[in-house]
Amino acid sequence: MARTLWLDPRQRLLTWDQTRLPFETVEIELGSAGDCAAAIATMQVRGAPLIGAVAAYGLAFALRSDASDEGLQAAREALLATRPTAVNLRWALERVARAVGGLPRADRAAAAWREAAAICDDDVACNRAIGEHAAALLAPLRRAGEPLQILTHCNAGRIATVDHGTALAAVYALAGAGVPVHVWVDETRPRNQGAGLTAWELRERGIAHTVIVDNAGGLLMQQGRVDAAIVGCDRVAANGDVANKVGTYLKALAARDNDVPFYVACPVSTIDPRCRGGDAIAIEERSPREVTHLRGRAPDGGIVEVQLTPDGSPAHNPAFDVTPARLVTALITERGCVEASPGAIGRLFPAGALA
Amino acid sequence: MARTLWLDPRQRLLTWDQTRLPFETVEIELGSAGDCAAAIATMQVRGAPLIGAVAAYGLAFALRSDASDEGLQAAREALLATRPTAVNLRWALERVARAVGGLPRADRAAAAWREAAAICDDDVACNRAIGEHAAALLAPLRRAGEPLQILTHCNAGRIATVDHGTALAAVYALAGAGVPVHVWVDETRPRNQGAGLTAWELRERGIAHTVIVDNAGGLLMQQGRVDAAIVGCDRVAANGDVANKVGTYLKALAARDNDVPFYVACPVSTIDPRCRGGDAIAIEERSPREVTHLRGRAPDGGIVEVQLTPDGSPAHNPAFDVTPARLVTALITERGCVEASPGAIGRLFPAGALA
Repeated sequence: MARTLWLDPRQRLLTWDQTRLPFETVEIELGSAGDCAAAIATMQVRGAPLIGAVAAYGLAFALRSDASDEGLQAAREALLATRPTAVNLRWALERVARAVGGLPRADRAAAAWREAAAICDDDVACNRAIGEHAAALLAPLRRAGEPLQILTHCNAGRIATVDHGTALAAVYALAGAGVPVHVWVDETRPRNQGAGLTAWELRERGIAHTVIVDNAGGLLMQQGRVDAAIVGCDRVAANGDVANKVGTYLKALAARDNDVPFYVACPVSTIDPRCRGGDAIAIEERSPREVTHLRGRAPDGGIVEVQLTPDGSPAHNPAFDVTPARLVTALITERGCVEASPGAIGRLFPAGALA
Repeated sequence: MARTLWLDPRQRLLTWDQTRLPFETVEIELGSAGDCAAAIATMQVRGAPLIGAVAAYGLAFALRSDASDEGLQAAREALLATRPTAVNLRWALERVARAVGGLPRADRAAAAWREAAAICDDDVACNRAIGEHAAALLAPLRRAGEPLQILTHCNAGRIATVDHGTALAAVYALAGAGVPVHVWVDETRPRNQGAGLTAWELRERGIAHTVIVDNAGGLLMQQGRVDAAIVGCDRVAANGDVANKVGTYLKALAARDNDVPFYVACPVSTIDPRCRGGDAIAIEERSPREVTHLRGRAPDGGIVEVQLTPDGSPAHNPAFDVTPARLVTALITERGCVEASPGAIGRLFPAGALA
């Protein structure tokens, strides 16, 4: 199956418009830094790793038209401003800027393009490794005669990354190894990345799953119907606190209360060693309209946005929350399983990288 | 403002069709036991206290056409079968049956009608008392210069009862006493009783409120933006475990983790002294379609049901969960504030009522 971000034979950058899934699979072409920034800001592309990859290509596009230091800096800032919470965005932009910084202007755009492609290849390899490490941890949790029961929140799947996904890489690796697995899919209000995207990609891959409302996961854990929870993350602080889609914290609390292991699939690029703790992570607030209105498929097959709340009732829409490190059983990185603690996280980084 | 259940001058029983709110206020007439049972089963009327009141009238209607012991028993069973979790339903049916059991057949229907009316009057008085007790507890939690910040889940409001509500009775009592109050309204998927009903009735009464997705409440508590959580309940076990709308447990966990008091507004009729603990409470499973589809108002003003999930992705829809007594700061009953413990609950009941 194709990657989520690909080049056509004419070297145009293509991806899916994720605001149209699961009902329509529409390709969009990204041909400029502005296209890339707009696709990130409107969430046509979303998922921390995919955002990083698209931003890297955005910087390469920008350098084609202005390869000056000022042009580089302006494009970096514009791309960085699209979303505030995920750290991969900043990480990918820094990686491209580092790769081109010492080069003559004439060589910068091509070097940036190569670096963006390398970021994509690295993401695929990283996620495959996360999947292998996670599968080794999770497979023994399966009860005899039952599929392994995994709960996930939001979409940390193939389409949140260049391929494989982070949290769902575990599911794909388990399924690939022949382990029977079933996924409880939190719908993940307000944008329904679970009901719309995770369900869509699991169904595409033929993996057993059931959609539940975000409210139901606690009950399922109380009933002993969840063997493990695994989620992605947008940013991990140096102390192990995890910023992820709003509602993650509630599932981590329920997992702890019911002795269900709670894993965070976490590329090392998602760890922000300069961020001391979760309270230093900016929580993006998005439009109240994402709460008051919802898009779905009408009986006539058309996509329609319906209003859910009475006229004049205001709404508030924080996009992330912070799960304290104490609730995280382990971070699963491409380098293996790591305790969510300052010491273990510090050992992932060269001396001096920590704030 | 009128009650949620009322008789017109021709003694017809009327209420709102709650499946049409918040966009349409449509009265429905209930003229038979079958009408009452259907309105409960389809959730045109919902909310544990209101269900009890409507079921009581349903039994009165049944006795008009068949006042035999067999007729009474059959109608009781049919009405009891409409919803499995709320205990008020059983309680109200028992109360009417007790009131008519020893009477001659000719007197039964009229006596049942009087008892149903008394159940309604008692509900109003009970809820007003709950509101007063709750307001006394909650008002001191307000921080200087801020409105009292209350979070609630589902709808335990005026339209879940004959009047006042249970959890929202607290809000109405506070507002009536001039205490500035603001309510964080969990939308309460899948049926959106928060976004649709709680927001609607708070707006009707001019009470400041903000709708949030169910995922957001934990973050708000982490941020110190919630002074207290208060919810209604469908059934409280003798040990203090609370069955309420699915997702309540997750908010109780977050409240405990952030030292936010978590109150359950709880008419004594909601306590089931014969139910030893939460694990003995049957959790209703409703149609998966409530998860996969959602009703809202289209841009043209029409009400439309949209599909949220991909074709062929299954869903699971448990309607309640159980909040363990250890997470409940207090039960607020019409007789005052009670600890969620077997001892305190036992003292509410005459000796011998407990299982």
